[in-house]
Amino acid sequence: MVRVKLIGAGGYGGVGTVELLLKHPYAQIAGLYDIVGIGKPYSSLYPHLLGFCDLAIRDIASEGDSEPADVAFLATPDGVGQQLAPKLLARGTRVIDFSGDFRFGSLDDYREYANRIGRAADHAAPDLLSNSVYGLTELYRDAIAATQIVGNPGCFAVSVILGFAPALKAGLIEPDTLIADSKTGVSGAGKTPRPQFHFPAQYDNMFAYKLTGHQHVIEIEQQLSALAGQRLALTFTPQVVPVCRGIMSCLYATLVRDMSLDDVQTVYRDFYRGERFVRVLDKDISGQNSAVRGSNFCHLWVNVDLRTRRLVVVSHIDNLMKGQAGSAVQNMNVMFGLDERAGLDRPAVYP
Amino acid sequence: MVRVKLIGAGGYGGVGTVELLLKHPYAQIAGLYDIVGIGKPYSSLYPHLLGFCDLAIRDIASEGDSEPADVAFLATPDGVGQQLAPKLLARGTRVIDFSGDFRFGSLDDYREYANRIGRAADHAAPDLLSNSVYGLTELYRDAIAATQIVGNPGCFAVSVILGFAPALKAGLIEPDTLIADSKTGVSGAGKTPRPQFHFPAQYDNMFAYKLTGHQHVIEIEQQLSALAGQRLALTFTPQVVPVCRGIMSCLYATLVRDMSLDDVQTVYRDFYRGERFVRVLDKDISGQNSAVRGSNFCHLWVNVDLRTRRLVVVSHIDNLMKGQAGSAVQNMNVMFGLDERAGLDRPAVYP
Amino acid sequence: MVRVKLIGAGGYGGVGTVELLLKHPYAQIAGLYDIVGIGKPYSSLYPHLLGFCDLAIRDIASEGDSEPADVAFLATPDGVGQQLAPKLLARGTRVIDFSGDFRFGSLDDYREYANRIGRAADHAAPDLLSNSVYGLTELYRDAIAATQIVGNPGCFAVSVILGFAPALKAGLIEPDTLIADSKTGVSGAGKTPRPQFHFPAQYDNMFAYKLTGHQHVIEIEQQLSALAGQRLALTFTPQVVPVCRGIMSCLYATLVRDMSLDDVQTVYRDFYRGERFVRVLDKDISGQNSAVRGSNFCHLWVNVDLRTRRLVVVSHIDNLMKGQAGSAVQNMNVMFGLDERAGLDRPAVYP
Amino acid sequence: MVRVKLIGAGGYGGVGTVELLLKHPYAQIAGLYDIVGIGKPYSSLYPHLLGFCDLAIRDIASEGDSEPADVAFLATPDGVGQQLAPKLLARGTRVIDFSGDFRFGSLDDYREYANRIGRAADHAAPDLLSNSVYGLTELYRDAIAATQIVGNPGCFAVSVILGFAPALKAGLIEPDTLIADSKTGVSGAGKTPRPQFHFPAQYDNMFAYKLTGHQHVIEIEQQLSALAGQRLALTFTPQVVPVCRGIMSCLYATLVRDMSLDDVQTVYRDFYRGERFVRVLDKDISGQNSAVRGSNFCHLWVNVDLRTRRLVVVSHIDNLMKGQAGSAVQNMNVMFGLDERAGLDRPAVYP
Repeated sequence: MVRVKLIGAGGYGGVGTVELLLKHPYAQIAGLYDIVGIGKPYSSLYPHLLGFCDLAIRDIASEGDSEPADVAFLATPDGVGQQLAPKLLARGTRVIDFSGDFRFGSLDDYREYANRIGRAADHAAPDLLSNSVYGLTELYRDAIAATQIVGNPGCFAVSVILGFAPALKAGLIEPDTLIADSKTGVSGAGKTPRPQFHFPAQYDNMFAYKLTGHQHVIEIEQQLSALAGQRLALTFTPQVVPVCRGIMSCLYATLVRDMSLDDVQTVYRDFYRGERFVRVLDKDISGQNSAVRGSNFCHLWVNVDLRTRRLVVVSHIDNLMKGQAGSAVQNMNVMFGLDERAGLDRPAVYP
Repeated sequence: MVRVKLIGAGGYGGVGTVELLLKHPYAQIAGLYDIVGIGKPYSSLYPHLLGFCDLAIRDIASEGDSEPADVAFLATPDGVGQQLAPKLLARGTRVIDFSGDFRFGSLDDYREYANRIGRAADHAAPDLLSNSVYGLTELYRDAIAATQIVGNPGCFAVSVILGFAPALKAGLIEPDTLIADSKTGVSGAGKTPRPQFHFPAQYDNMFAYKLTGHQHVIEIEQQLSALAGQRLALTFTPQVVPVCRGIMSCLYATLVRDMSLDDVQTVYRDFYRGERFVRVLDKDISGQNSAVRGSNFCHLWVNVDLRTRRLVVVSHIDNLMKGQAGSAVQNMNVMFGLDERAGLDRPAVYP
Repeated sequence: MVRVKLIGAGGYGGVGTVELLLKHPYAQIAGLYDIVGIGKPYSSLYPHLLGFCDLAIRDIASEGDSEPADVAFLATPDGVGQQLAPKLLARGTRVIDFSGDFRFGSLDDYREYANRIGRAADHAAPDLLSNSVYGLTELYRDAIAATQIVGNPGCFAVSVILGFAPALKAGLIEPDTLIADSKTGVSGAGKTPRPQFHFPAQYDNMFAYKLTGHQHVIEIEQQLSALAGQRLALTFTPQVVPVCRGIMSCLYATLVRDMSLDDVQTVYRDFYRGERFVRVLDKDISGQNSAVRGSNFCHLWVNVDLRTRRLVVVSHIDNLMKGQAGSAVQNMNVMFGLDERAGLDRPAVYP
Repeated sequence: MVRVKLIGAGGYGGVGTVELLLKHPYAQIAGLYDIVGIGKPYSSLYPHLLGFCDLAIRDIASEGDSEPADVAFLATPDGVGQQLAPKLLARGTRVIDFSGDFRFGSLDDYREYANRIGRAADHAAPDLLSNSVYGLTELYRDAIAATQIVGNPGCFAVSVILGFAPALKAGLIEPDTLIADSKTGVSGAGKTPRPQFHFPAQYDNMFAYKLTGHQHVIEIEQQLSALAGQRLALTFTPQVVPVCRGIMSCLYATLVRDMSLDDVQTVYRDFYRGERFVRVLDKDISGQNSAVRGSNFCHLWVNVDLRTRRLVVVSHIDNLMKGQAGSAVQNMNVMFGLDERAGLDRPAVYP
């Protein structure tokens, strides 16, 4: 059994991980850590886990005193993981970090990102950046299997990168025409109450935000550029709709030449052949959030607007699963040589 | 492996059962039957099950020609089960019926119920009524283990009966003072679209209905009377709120004498001692729908209003789980001598 | 034109009042005051009022320096109104307070209430208590017309008192059998974000709270006792459902004798004859939140459970209108001899 | 007073019109017509209008026998208006049609549209097409003032055309780069219940549909082409999110040259100078649905992605107001020489 320490257990990333680990056949929770709720049973925070996870929450500060684990999930805000990772690695504990701390291979890229989120301090563990792997399993499976430290991707980034990857890799689309129009459920903003996410404010509302400066743009562009083999810039429009879980990204790009839908779809199907968690839908089945909500699947609905020679891909994921905890567990499975589907291969609950 | 035929697979009762059976370690689906969608893969109806349940839907009319199963779940409307049950039993297939067809032990009680729902035809299999057992596992476990046919309880009924049972059985409350104020999510009304459940009509709405004539009252009163040892009448107020899954019943009754909350709670805890799926909450933990949604648990929050000498129990279930498919699988487990928790012992997904 | 100062303009009580005053033919806003957002245009807080109310928010502390108004609405938390009211009255400004500060006629009653809400300090203006009038217009119209200071009622209280009043006044029900099961939309909890009202926590949730100690019980019991002519105690179960605006109270009491629904309904219709904002629905029209949402109307659906001799009244209001700002404007109209319907006589927007 | 006949009163377009006419200072309802509910009071369909609109619904077939009106609103499905309009016009009743029947100036354009919606029959009143005016008031005010018949625009079309118009007219954007990503609330699909809009199916769901063939594309392209002075094709992605009222369209196009946000915004402000119902938001105020919901306003949030030289406009309207009934009343005001704002100049109710 892989022994997992979960640090930052109190938030949505934490509880999503707990839910998955409870059902995982080859992993077990070795400790739950946070900076609040110390000493309380985890189920007092999350009553739906009463009788399933009543472990007492431990103080992050005391993590080093506890017995070691095989892997630590760091469901912590930006800046925390870079403090903790060196110590964990030194003790032989591999690291999967949920923040932007380890998503970038170079210090320069990290600094651009840090600047975007208004973070003044420099990276606390820059040496680790060249060792860390971007945790989008479908793209970096081999490297993930070989690394000690993974930077788990951002939720918006997962939905956008998986949707553009086959077309970019195959050179089907003009690299300077990419637009991602992404709608997220509110859980993507985390567990902390804020005025705009107060139920009366959000219940029948929708809005776009950070139109020219969302922090996920940097990792998206880095990954898409790598796929395209050239530096590209993306227009990205994040939006919030009154959904709890789910991201729907509508992805637009101009095809380099006239292509039929069948031909494009074949490229997508070939790219994801053998992948369990990414599905290219039949062309007459439109995607929908309820088909992936609560699951680790990404559904891609591929369309071609023949009149404008434009590719339109609608990408659906659950932001808390494939967009966060699900990807993290998938990465853990790969890192430890387990069946990649272990603990993840289940459908959503509906309705 | 217990082989299960599911008849009426297309509705919410059907899909709830499919989801549970897919995860069940000792049961497997032997066939899905309905009167619509014949020949189509089940996942075309429920896209979240793509790759998990792509079985073709079969015609109910041809069920007799297929190979036999160990048990049939009849997730069918009133009147259908009484037609099918005799044939199934004759072929050695046990029956768990989701409608009111087999919830009543006598023809007179059934007729009162049939009259309430405006059903003119008499019962098609009256001889089976005396053999059928009311499928509230916590109350009739031994009888369920011994029977060939179970009448699965109504969702409102489960929440009300479990909440009143300990107090009535122990003689704590005046039998003529019972009131159940029950709020249900919209999925309790089934999958068929209706004007009042159209999203724009229901999204910020709430209403009470059938205040003096809901059909579930009859089975509730029959069960509560049995517990009280005397015939009693209940005031029952069903209501719909803009929730998808869940029932919250506020149950009121006058205590026969002054009692402390601790004493009442002890009675409740003793009554449900050893039960996995009914929890008497600590007095300082209020119940909430999100703690049971998607699970087979019933949470009871017991309160005493000392000033008015009134017991107030808040009962929470998921109407599609403990209120329907979950109870059905729990009954199947008991009927076949399996671990009662098999396939059911999992928490909700949150948020 | 009646000149209105609105103090505590930033919250939901404030914005509800602003919306009503903007449409009022005989009243105008003389100033908006709060302790935050000083100097900013009101529409920066509430963008839907852009171009309708761009007044700068003023500091409450400077209210005394501004020109006087005819009436001040104090949409402020408990304890603030009792500080401000004496000064306002001394300057000839009448007062309508939205908190519990002036809902109680005696210091003893206030202290019981203050104790319930955990308020340690004694009332700062006890002399005003005997002059203040409880602002439920339908019950105290004449006294409101004659007073300088009104204690606007609590939202739950409005729905419960209006629903029980005719039956209690006519002696139809046993005073010791009253139960109010009240479901509120989330806006009733105010504008401040809290964990339980974060969209992901509340969107498909429902729960009961404060089962034996909600602060509104005191004013409800005081008013119901006055109507009954004897001291009575009520069982009150407040609940939150995922609705934005609206309260649905199911009210239960035992009839003193067998009565037909028609007879009870006649009592209700007679009691509210001539009232514009309280409607006793035809018996075959069930109430629903969407019929009152956004309006100042209270809909009462009267039912009799003949088998248990119980009265069941379902009472619907919009908590922000008849439950708060609407009642306040109605009271202002009465205090200033205006048409009681002025600015209020409009239906909800649907859907 | 302008006397209005409303034909097709039963749907959402009908009730939206009724709500507006009830508050209109210069118009009155002369008759409500439909094919169902004949003889019933309108408030039995829409209980929130009890006491405000209790007129009996009349049979459409008998409309010709009733006394004439000054204008008829045809809130009827495609194909109905073209049957009724000639008769109404012959009796001197002007016509505002809500369907696609009169949105196109030529029979060829109409036929393309009719083909898209699967309508086989040819136009029943082709002669009227050259007289009818497209009812987007801000673009065709003078023509609307002079015509007898208006084709009220589609809701998606309003949000898209108003958002692109200034940039296209000023030649700021490349005509072959336009993309509209439009999210609508469910009321946009009308009042008839359908499986995908059943509350349990839609409550936490979102999906795109008709990616390459939505019928509104034709009127959008016709109008945008006229503005651009050349034929253009648009990529249009309609989506449904769990909102009741509201459309948010994210509009993308490539600028013909590098431009600052200020310069682009100036073009937008100049274009809409003097318009009451279209607002170009300050650049630091993002739009949101709740700011326009229930009102006739369109909010445009203009952005420039300097890196990709792309214009991004976020356009917000209430689909039932500026997207339907509000535009219709605005057109009526223009047709009859009334103050264009009459009956419409009110903010939304919030929260």
